[in-house]
Amino acid sequence: MREDVIGRANVEDTPELEAYYKELEQFEAGALWTVANKIEPWQPKSQSVPVLWRYKDLREHVLRSVDLVTPEKAGRRVIYLNNPGRRDVSAAVGWLYSGLQVMNPGEVASAHAHSASALRFIMEGSGAYTIVDGHKMTLGARDFVLTPNGTWHEHGVEASGSPCIWQDGLDIPFVNAIEANFYAVHPKIQQDDSGLPIDDMTKTWGNPGLRPATGKWSKGYSPMFKYEWEPTYESLNKYAKATDGSPFDGILMNYVNPVTGGHVMQTIGASMQMLRPGEKTKSHRHTGSFIYQVAKGSGYSIIDGKRFNWQERDIFCVPSWAWHEHGNDSNTEDACLFTFNDLPVIEGLGFYREEAYGDNAGHQAVAA
Amino acid sequence: MREDVIGRANVEDTPELEAYYKELEQFEAGALWTVANKIEPWQPKSQSVPVLWRYKDLREHVLRSVDLVTPEKAGRRVIYLNNPGRRDVSAAVGWLYSGLQVMNPGEVASAHAHSASALRFIMEGSGAYTIVDGHKMTLGARDFVLTPNGTWHEHGVEASGSPCIWQDGLDIPFVNAIEANFYAVHPKIQQDDSGLPIDDMTKTWGNPGLRPATGKWSKGYSPMFKYEWEPTYESLNKYAKATDGSPFDGILMNYVNPVTGGHVMQTIGASMQMLRPGEKTKSHRHTGSFIYQVAKGSGYSIIDGKRFNWQERDIFCVPSWAWHEHGNDSNTEDACLFTFNDLPVIEGLGFYREEAYGDNAGHQAVAA
Amino acid sequence: MREDVIGRANVEDTPELEAYYKELEQFEAGALWTVANKIEPWQPKSQSVPVLWRYKDLREHVLRSVDLVTPEKAGRRVIYLNNPGRRDVSAAVGWLYSGLQVMNPGEVASAHAHSASALRFIMEGSGAYTIVDGHKMTLGARDFVLTPNGTWHEHGVEASGSPCIWQDGLDIPFVNAIEANFYAVHPKIQQDDSGLPIDDMTKTWGNPGLRPATGKWSKGYSPMFKYEWEPTYESLNKYAKATDGSPFDGILMNYVNPVTGGHVMQTIGASMQMLRPGEKTKSHRHTGSFIYQVAKGSGYSIIDGKRFNWQERDIFCVPSWAWHEHGNDSNTEDACLFTFNDLPVIEGLGFYREEAYGDNAGHQAVAA
Amino acid sequence: MREDVIGRANVEDTPELEAYYKELEQFEAGALWTVANKIEPWQPKSQSVPVLWRYKDLREHVLRSVDLVTPEKAGRRVIYLNNPGRRDVSAAVGWLYSGLQVMNPGEVASAHAHSASALRFIMEGSGAYTIVDGHKMTLGARDFVLTPNGTWHEHGVEASGSPCIWQDGLDIPFVNAIEANFYAVHPKIQQDDSGLPIDDMTKTWGNPGLRPATGKWSKGYSPMFKYEWEPTYESLNKYAKATDGSPFDGILMNYVNPVTGGHVMQTIGASMQMLRPGEKTKSHRHTGSFIYQVAKGSGYSIIDGKRFNWQERDIFCVPSWAWHEHGNDSNTEDACLFTFNDLPVIEGLGFYREEAYGDNAGHQAVAA
Ligand SMILES: [Fe+2]
Ligand SMILES: [Fe+2]
Ligand SMILES: [Fe+2]
Ligand SMILES: [Fe+2]
Ligand SMILES: [Fe+2]
Ligand SMILES: [Fe+2]
Ligand SMILES: [Fe+2]
Ligand SMILES: [Fe+2]
Repeated sequence: MREDVIGRANVEDTPELEAYYKELEQFEAGALWTVANKIEPWQPKSQSVPVLWRYKDLREHVLRSVDLVTPEKAGRRVIYLNNPGRRDVSAAVGWLYSGLQVMNPGEVASAHAHSASALRFIMEGSGAYTIVDGHKMTLGARDFVLTPNGTWHEHGVEASGSPCIWQDGLDIPFVNAIEANFYAVHPKIQQDDSGLPIDDMTKTWGNPGLRPATGKWSKGYSPMFKYEWEPTYESLNKYAKATDGSPFDGILMNYVNPVTGGHVMQTIGASMQMLRPGEKTKSHRHTGSFIYQVAKGSGYSIIDGKRFNWQERDIFCVPSWAWHEHGNDSNTEDACLFTFNDLPVIEGLGFYREEAYGDNAGHQAVAA
Repeated sequence: MREDVIGRANVEDTPELEAYYKELEQFEAGALWTVANKIEPWQPKSQSVPVLWRYKDLREHVLRSVDLVTPEKAGRRVIYLNNPGRRDVSAAVGWLYSGLQVMNPGEVASAHAHSASALRFIMEGSGAYTIVDGHKMTLGARDFVLTPNGTWHEHGVEASGSPCIWQDGLDIPFVNAIEANFYAVHPKIQQDDSGLPIDDMTKTWGNPGLRPATGKWSKGYSPMFKYEWEPTYESLNKYAKATDGSPFDGILMNYVNPVTGGHVMQTIGASMQMLRPGEKTKSHRHTGSFIYQVAKGSGYSIIDGKRFNWQERDIFCVPSWAWHEHGNDSNTEDACLFTFNDLPVIEGLGFYREEAYGDNAGHQAVAA
Repeated sequence: MREDVIGRANVEDTPELEAYYKELEQFEAGALWTVANKIEPWQPKSQSVPVLWRYKDLREHVLRSVDLVTPEKAGRRVIYLNNPGRRDVSAAVGWLYSGLQVMNPGEVASAHAHSASALRFIMEGSGAYTIVDGHKMTLGARDFVLTPNGTWHEHGVEASGSPCIWQDGLDIPFVNAIEANFYAVHPKIQQDDSGLPIDDMTKTWGNPGLRPATGKWSKGYSPMFKYEWEPTYESLNKYAKATDGSPFDGILMNYVNPVTGGHVMQTIGASMQMLRPGEKTKSHRHTGSFIYQVAKGSGYSIIDGKRFNWQERDIFCVPSWAWHEHGNDSNTEDACLFTFNDLPVIEGLGFYREEAYGDNAGHQAVAA
Repeated sequence: MREDVIGRANVEDTPELEAYYKELEQFEAGALWTVANKIEPWQPKSQSVPVLWRYKDLREHVLRSVDLVTPEKAGRRVIYLNNPGRRDVSAAVGWLYSGLQVMNPGEVASAHAHSASALRFIMEGSGAYTIVDGHKMTLGARDFVLTPNGTWHEHGVEASGSPCIWQDGLDIPFVNAIEANFYAVHPKIQQDDSGLPIDDMTKTWGNPGLRPATGKWSKGYSPMFKYEWEPTYESLNKYAKATDGSPFDGILMNYVNPVTGGHVMQTIGASMQMLRPGEKTKSHRHTGSFIYQVAKGSGYSIIDGKRFNWQERDIFCVPSWAWHEHGNDSNTEDACLFTFNDLPVIEGLGFYREEAYGDNAGHQAVAA
């Protein structure tokens, strides 16, 4: 890949050079200029492509898995999302994995722990719960839950509940890539009853402007394991009264670790954003990979020139450095997008970079 | 002050030594062993004494000041609290100043700024507001408000309101002591209208587990300038369901800077605590000076062996290293105590130390 | 990949399931249990293999490149090291790139910047220099130099010097993997003379226990761009007098950012270690990928059961979670190993994990 | 103290008001406007005055104390420095204590610990040592040593040494003021031999750009307990080649905690500065209290309009917000000033403020 630009590799193959390259190979070596322009691109070119996964397509297949496999046999009964550019690493975008998990009333999954960080966003059903390091949480629609790196966790649905579906989000591909993934099954298969009150961590840490005086917390993730939908939606509405919002994202808030004000986990961040009635944002692009779930309403996103129309519970992704803008289809109802991403990695290591789309009043042309 | 203990100064005065001490004085010097035991006590002995200021005593005097002086002449119309041991520095306890400020409907005070950090806790009246660096906040009973180090601030009561009284808390004595106090009157006497929405900072930063994605804040104090009573009380009740509470304090939460999870300002911390119906805490002591206001209910505190019975809006103080325990008089209603303190200084500089009262099942004997 | 273990996927293929899998593919989805055991291994299994690159093998080929390509045509004249398991990403181990760069007296390379972080470790020659954001540094053998993420940098050898060879280390593969790599050629091809004194950053920040009172530095990398060999070796010798050393590493010190005490860059850490005369360390393994260069002396390393004998200027790698131990062959001379690694990523994101080799008094059996 | 300025208290005494003030007194209260202007000054006015303590005056008196008291009787045999404005708190300036301690060969002082932080700067003699939490350090002239808050420490002079004098610096007055001072005598009067190598902490942490890979240190103070003169002076000379220096301070470096890059202790900072031959700095003022010792050379300082000529080992102080400038008398030799100060408190709590002297080309007029 030669480039005729000063400062870039531009070496023509010659028989002498080709012989030289052969020799280098014997010593597990190569000539940088043969790969330099490829490994040092002018700007990122993601291997992922934008994808929209429609809930109406997936739902029946997810439910069908209930009949096909047991949680015992499957480990977890999950249909995962495959980005066409990332099938080799089972990622939905970048290094992020996502899937839809389904459990029937009365089912329980075995407790386990892993270095990968996980989150869930509840899509439907009642009676679901999760237990993270002994903290039991009840899960309702649009609640957002953490099961961080290294924690013991198990899921279930009470016998009195209904079939539950939620979205899983994990950094499994990333943790594999950096060769740091450990997995353990709980020695007793289920965690012992800790005796802790239900939802204790949310009651303790999920208070506005207040925190327990005696609570020490120095782990790398948020102690507030569950973020409920109702106060989240209320927060967006309150914040909307105090800001004009972002031109690119409307009313955008991050879920945070209340102890630090930073991201909820060390490798995965998450946000909820509201597009106000009729709001159409401008385009920008930035580093970082993003998976969206439509929490409320309907609308569209234009990603690298392609339009994706979405409805409640649809999932889509925005790859790194892809142009993107969003629109709410309704002029009377707001639309809300839940997102999770690898920003803690990108920002934390010094790689965040952002650019506004300058042309056409900030809006991309859409491919026909 | 001689002590007959190895490692302590124990030098007898002799004529020769007295002559020597005289000589040293000429050179602005002295012999350490003449003062060592005094300046290196075995443990802190506060110059402050415990005091209870009853609202029923103070209220009429505070209101009378309305007739006696104008805000223009007085600067601020405040009756301040004098600890008998700290009259020289106008402190209510330790290095903390406190006073009761009163404003009538239609009054406005001039805008100014100072290096001292300030807070207010609203006691009664309607229509009060404060403007901090252009952010206007409406103030209701039991709301807690910040006017941090260096911010422009001004107070007033709307013409449609009623006479308002609030407690001021400042670190004026401390900032004077470390010789770092600056004061400025606003060049225009009142701040210009900033056009910002009312209570914008609380709407932006006062959300549980969420914060604005684009909000940058790196100042040394909380951007959430106002902490309202209702969500505070709700938070105490939620947290009470998740904890057994502290044996010394019941349900105790700190007001925090949501960006850091730390204290609201660099020199003053604040908390709200709930004593559950019938709750009687055990005694402990610790470094740090504390001023309490009874936000709700009635009860008592025992401080260094002396009992103080308190009612709503009473104010009292606990000096550094004084034993203290609290009790709620009611078996059906909870009682709430607002506190502010110098913990950011004490903890931040490495001086926090705590001890539980061991005898008598943790309860002090009360002097007759 | 089925596993007959509770909590792991163990689903037999059936015609019904295979049909189901086909259907899922249409929706860019799959069944997690078909890949779960693969993507959630019990522990990391690196794609990299241990490799030793002997300087005596490489040196002549590196020098030959001088005749084969110019820096102008090649961009940079570098022979890079190819790990057999990582050829697809041009990495020497894990996500770390390394190569040997050669420049002749009088040559200069064009100035450029990239999101990848880089370092050099000087191997031979005199008169080399590098300029990082206007700070010019002279380079001697075994000096260690940074060219961090985003800095303008250029290299050259003074006309009065001799041919110079150094080892480059970069995180190019990692930055590509997280799709965050930007590259820019300096608009003027060479940086303007900044007028700053030679080696100013080392003189300013490279002082033991002291730093400039007025120096502000808040970037993500060390301001001390060059770490010279002489004080480094002296430091190892001083520290050796105060410690028994590590059973796994002998006398091991990290190069640090003097402002934070942390790693020199946000994605690459570096260390120098001394194996005392006759010292043979015990085996351990840990997450993180490491590239070593022998700075002084000779000895061996046993990596995952394979012995590698090394001499001065040889380079070898230790993949993530590979067992490794080191030995100094000499009973009279110390041996020193320079290392760079991805520990800032591994530690910073919460993935560091370490295990001592328990059997055989801590020493691996070596394959025949 | 009335002021005829809008926003300041300006209330005339009337019989009615005087009666009112009397009434308030009964309730431990007062009217703020009677003290407001005093407690809220426009800018700091230090209670301390500039003082120069000449070593030639003090030395003989310090040595005489050896004959007058034993360390056993005196606790520590120290002549302390009394600022005329701070005699009530035994401070040399602000809230900082300083004294000259003398010990004869063969003497040992008892081990103890206190909440106050301490440092020493060695002035003369050989054979002195100190032991801090089991770490023994030998002390030579101009070495700078820490004995931080809470550490066990003891001093002595080897029998083979000569009479030793050093300057002590402590924050005793401050720790008393915030009512947080604890004192303990070591249960065994002397610390047990820890077996640690002499000067181990300096060998471990006092290396330029390097630190032990395995060393964890999270205490609030520097693990590098001793900063030796020789590398300090070398560092000033190196840094001088890379900077123009500060117009107010010449070549000024802070002693730092190598783990954080910050101040050596939580309440006391320290610096060494070099005035180059003939250098005369400009005046500025800032918050914070400073005690200087002349480590090398001779010159003068002008403090709030008064000139102080100093020589090696003289001590002087600069109060908060006092104008000050320094000059080196020699045109051939450099002069060095050691300083310690309360900057960690002032900066850490948000009170640092600085102003350059604008008139007269930056130089004060000196009172005749
Ligand atoms: Fe899991
Ligand atoms: Fe975006
Ligand atoms: Fe004020
Ligand atoms: Fe308390
Ligand atoms: Fe480069
Ligand atoms: Fe290792
Ligand atoms: Fe002491
Ligand atoms: Fe100064």
